[in-house]
Amino acid sequence: MSEGNDTPTTAELDEIWERTKNWTRWGSDDERGALNFLSDAHRAEAAATVRSGRSVSLGNDITTQPTPETPSPAHHHMLASGDARDSNGIPGYEASRDYIGTEVHGMGITHLDALCHMFVRGEMYNGRPAGDVKSTGALSNTVMATADGLAGRGVFLDIPRARGVDALDGNTAITVADLERAEETQGSPVQSGDLLIVGGGRDARRTAQGGRFDPFRDGMAGLHPQCLPWLHEREVALLMGDGISDMTPGLGVANWPFPVHQIGITGMGLHLVDNVNLARLAPVCTDEQRWEFLCVVAPLRIPGGTGCPVNPIAVF
Amino acid sequence: MSEGNDTPTTAELDEIWERTKNWTRWGSDDERGALNFLSDAHRAEAAATVRSGRSVSLGNDITTQPTPETPSPAHHHMLASGDARDSNGIPGYEASRDYIGTEVHGMGITHLDALCHMFVRGEMYNGRPAGDVKSTGALSNTVMATADGLAGRGVFLDIPRARGVDALDGNTAITVADLERAEETQGSPVQSGDLLIVGGGRDARRTAQGGRFDPFRDGMAGLHPQCLPWLHEREVALLMGDGISDMTPGLGVANWPFPVHQIGITGMGLHLVDNVNLARLAPVCTDEQRWEFLCVVAPLRIPGGTGCPVNPIAVF
Amino acid sequence: MSEGNDTPTTAELDEIWERTKNWTRWGSDDERGALNFLSDAHRAEAAATVRSGRSVSLGNDITTQPTPETPSPAHHHMLASGDARDSNGIPGYEASRDYIGTEVHGMGITHLDALCHMFVRGEMYNGRPAGDVKSTGALSNTVMATADGLAGRGVFLDIPRARGVDALDGNTAITVADLERAEETQGSPVQSGDLLIVGGGRDARRTAQGGRFDPFRDGMAGLHPQCLPWLHEREVALLMGDGISDMTPGLGVANWPFPVHQIGITGMGLHLVDNVNLARLAPVCTDEQRWEFLCVVAPLRIPGGTGCPVNPIAVF
Amino acid sequence: MSEGNDTPTTAELDEIWERTKNWTRWGSDDERGALNFLSDAHRAEAAATVRSGRSVSLGNDITTQPTPETPSPAHHHMLASGDARDSNGIPGYEASRDYIGTEVHGMGITHLDALCHMFVRGEMYNGRPAGDVKSTGALSNTVMATADGLAGRGVFLDIPRARGVDALDGNTAITVADLERAEETQGSPVQSGDLLIVGGGRDARRTAQGGRFDPFRDGMAGLHPQCLPWLHEREVALLMGDGISDMTPGLGVANWPFPVHQIGITGMGLHLVDNVNLARLAPVCTDEQRWEFLCVVAPLRIPGGTGCPVNPIAVF
Repeated sequence: MSEGNDTPTTAELDEIWERTKNWTRWGSDDERGALNFLSDAHRAEAAATVRSGRSVSLGNDITTQPTPETPSPAHHHMLASGDARDSNGIPGYEASRDYIGTEVHGMGITHLDALCHMFVRGEMYNGRPAGDVKSTGALSNTVMATADGLAGRGVFLDIPRARGVDALDGNTAITVADLERAEETQGSPVQSGDLLIVGGGRDARRTAQGGRFDPFRDGMAGLHPQCLPWLHEREVALLMGDGISDMTPGLGVANWPFPVHQIGITGMGLHLVDNVNLARLAPVCTDEQRWEFLCVVAPLRIPGGTGCPVNPIAVF
Repeated sequence: MSEGNDTPTTAELDEIWERTKNWTRWGSDDERGALNFLSDAHRAEAAATVRSGRSVSLGNDITTQPTPETPSPAHHHMLASGDARDSNGIPGYEASRDYIGTEVHGMGITHLDALCHMFVRGEMYNGRPAGDVKSTGALSNTVMATADGLAGRGVFLDIPRARGVDALDGNTAITVADLERAEETQGSPVQSGDLLIVGGGRDARRTAQGGRFDPFRDGMAGLHPQCLPWLHEREVALLMGDGISDMTPGLGVANWPFPVHQIGITGMGLHLVDNVNLARLAPVCTDEQRWEFLCVVAPLRIPGGTGCPVNPIAVF
Repeated sequence: MSEGNDTPTTAELDEIWERTKNWTRWGSDDERGALNFLSDAHRAEAAATVRSGRSVSLGNDITTQPTPETPSPAHHHMLASGDARDSNGIPGYEASRDYIGTEVHGMGITHLDALCHMFVRGEMYNGRPAGDVKSTGALSNTVMATADGLAGRGVFLDIPRARGVDALDGNTAITVADLERAEETQGSPVQSGDLLIVGGGRDARRTAQGGRFDPFRDGMAGLHPQCLPWLHEREVALLMGDGISDMTPGLGVANWPFPVHQIGITGMGLHLVDNVNLARLAPVCTDEQRWEFLCVVAPLRIPGGTGCPVNPIAVF
Repeated sequence: MSEGNDTPTTAELDEIWERTKNWTRWGSDDERGALNFLSDAHRAEAAATVRSGRSVSLGNDITTQPTPETPSPAHHHMLASGDARDSNGIPGYEASRDYIGTEVHGMGITHLDALCHMFVRGEMYNGRPAGDVKSTGALSNTVMATADGLAGRGVFLDIPRARGVDALDGNTAITVADLERAEETQGSPVQSGDLLIVGGGRDARRTAQGGRFDPFRDGMAGLHPQCLPWLHEREVALLMGDGISDMTPGLGVANWPFPVHQIGITGMGLHLVDNVNLARLAPVCTDEQRWEFLCVVAPLRIPGGTGCPVNPIAVF
């Protein structure tokens, strides 16, 4: 198997796909995948780690202006501003109202990927057919598998910090060695059921570029495919990244353009949260000298949904 | 002051408005209002109450069909279903995508009311003018005041249970006596900084009516205005209800059609979460014999927003 | 063959389907169907019929409130009202802006049905497969077939007038005899290439009911399936109705719940305009003593679209 | 007064504003402005000019991808594609459905500007206050003034053709001399009530640039402000342009950044259609050797609307 930045072959990724596949592991009807590692007991332990009570958001601001990160930005439409505060017709009642809408996926908005978001050769996690995802909504592997919220122990592996740099360059491969060095340096080993956050320094790069960042042209760091067996062994329940966890533009392996999405979501049943904001989290971790915390992701209950915009919260 | 179901006069509500008003209490620039009671220390204590790690969602399913509860339902539009899983143009990449949009307020969707949602005689919380809420978004008192998430001790006062009934009738006034009886029966006194959830049995009524419920015609239980000074004294940080916390259609007091929204949000700076689902929570509380838990509400970061759909999570 | 209100059998409709099917009539690649009857020469003749220059709209107002006619109404969102007229950032430039969005089909909004709107046993007009209509848009038989506009001779057959009633009852079958009586009474024979408008009195019924009308419960008049061969013989280019041209709730023939939509659109390649407003047109026709006019329908150019909201214009 | 490309002073534009202002000309309640020139008689004459019956669309395709011309493109969402053609629940009924939504204004989509779209110093056409345009919709000067459709004599002045060039450069001023030369060359004098289309070659420039055009950076030709008195004298009813009729980025006169929009719409009550597509029209005019035709614009009936996307149709 290749190491570091080496590009694996299609056959090597085929092998990882087979080796890490969790289909039927939790029953043929399972739609939670690796979230099965996130048990009530794990959640209770996570809550017990809270010390200061400090609370940090890992979400990006919703943007309504087109940028390279959000070419299809959200719609935030006021339905009644102060000028129409009496528009409901109830005497004495004065209120404003608005509408919020957004594409769920992409490289800008912080969002959860449900297991029905990805297919490999026409199949979803646990062998469900692509035809289950209809134009009227998905019939299986939807975001409803996360409806009770994802609360557990969050571990943030800050790779630029472990490497002693401000940020990783575009298309950098984060390796198993990187992950383990960060675990060791930070003193925060990844355990079964954890919500793992891997940072590559995207926010720092955006800031360094004056607030403008192009995920396609500038590229983003992501996990080398060799990390997939490691995530599998460690029994990570949820994977979050300041990019999309996959390297962009990627390694260019035939059939496997985005192996973390393809093998992680579809094979392992690993939910992802893309585009988390770590600019607020990193300094707090340094300040608290802790890279573990209670983490809560609370997707909306969207029947048939392929994911949801979220604002993950870390409590120290 | 009137008691029970007695209807207060406008002058009495004017007096409550003046007495409970928190303007300038936390500075003239404050936009968090009663959330100032929700300190890091309170949050740490809340996390420490977690025992079993059981997790329960308090959100309603997003509905896309018009009903009396959601006459303007959400839009869940698939942008690419399984039939177009190759539509991104990356060879080997197969994905589905969707869009979610919704009106933020109303009597169906579970949502947080930001402080800019309500005005009293042209003014918002802390004296901000209605003109601050523009058609392009609000300039002050927006949902961004909750961007770091609302994590704290949740206390659920189950009023039908305390009264020994399945559900309260429409337009029933929940009184201070009701709240205190529930506190006592349940052994869960409301403390400063708590996220208070008051249940009136709406979900039970919907179920009893075969799944159909009309918040306008059927009416909903809500807090009698005499509860406002009580919420003020108890220093509640956030108020959630299975209705809209206000009685519907209400008591009909001139100028004060929805006093909890008007005096609570605008005067006290009390954020509300409307339309929480308690059908899952109530049996878990009974089972765990606890009506307090860690509660997390994580609104999206919407600059200029008047609120946000949310899925509050309780962890026992 | 059955007559009048008699209910045909499935076999009879199967036979009409076969008899009136225009597949391959204009080539195997044709996507215009009966619009092929609407030639430049016909259009020139239509323009030559204009006398007074009087102009009448056949569109319903776009509604943003849910009603039985529009359970999923349009979104008309102001993006900048007068309160934010300077929001573009150009000194001295003051403007308002808005957003308009709507479901294309349904029983309320005046809209054109493209040929890809309907399928019969998995096939569209001219034998295209249902799979051509993808979640990312239709690949064939789209509304782009009408992109150059539909201008031609409009003929309005006012059936209530011909029958001497204010309006037809719900689910009334309009028969060939009705159509021919109206032609004769009005002196407006339907000719090849005409844009035919058949009125059943829906607007009068709505008015009589105080502005509220429920197309499902109240029902609407529509063409009896025996009219399909007649439309075929007369070479009608476009069919418009104040209902949906089909009777609602319909005759209940197995496999053929809405035969005008199914056989008309899919078999004959006949575009429909549903829910036209005839309350303005009818009195003008009486006043002008003419039931023919220049008629123009100008759908937006929506690649992949299954139809479009329209405002048909009649010029006398 | 300045000529040609000379930049007028603010005082000169103030003077044009006063001189061409039509407020109260058609009564203090008028909301049609220059459309009052478009009489039934004019419309009848326009129809009488039709010869060949050839029909041409002047609309751009609706785009759903962000481009410099459409940074906020339309949403075309399929609600049911072929994979869910049975989703309505009526046995035997197979249909597809979609949703179309768009911002009305901008520099890409072909759209009509209603008179409430523009303000000058807080006032709209006929002296209506900016406050009439509320976040819940406009109360006056809305697009409903055009609800019966705009059918009349269209005259296309092809300025690049008159100048003997393929296209005008960005920010080129089209002068009165240009307009009159085109009138003379083409033999199509502009008359009272005409729907005037002035072309600057935008479509040719887009094509020459390989399909990509940036209205902001590349700039667009538009009418020099000295044309405003000319439009006023000629009693033009509607002005359409392949740009926005104003030069972009403009002449930079203080207070008057876009004088055709400001003085034309607000002062003269002149409706505009921006971003018409002339790539199809120009060759047909040359082929027919006619630059006049029947022209029909049919905006949707949007109560409170500031404009509407349209597909203007020319019939020769």
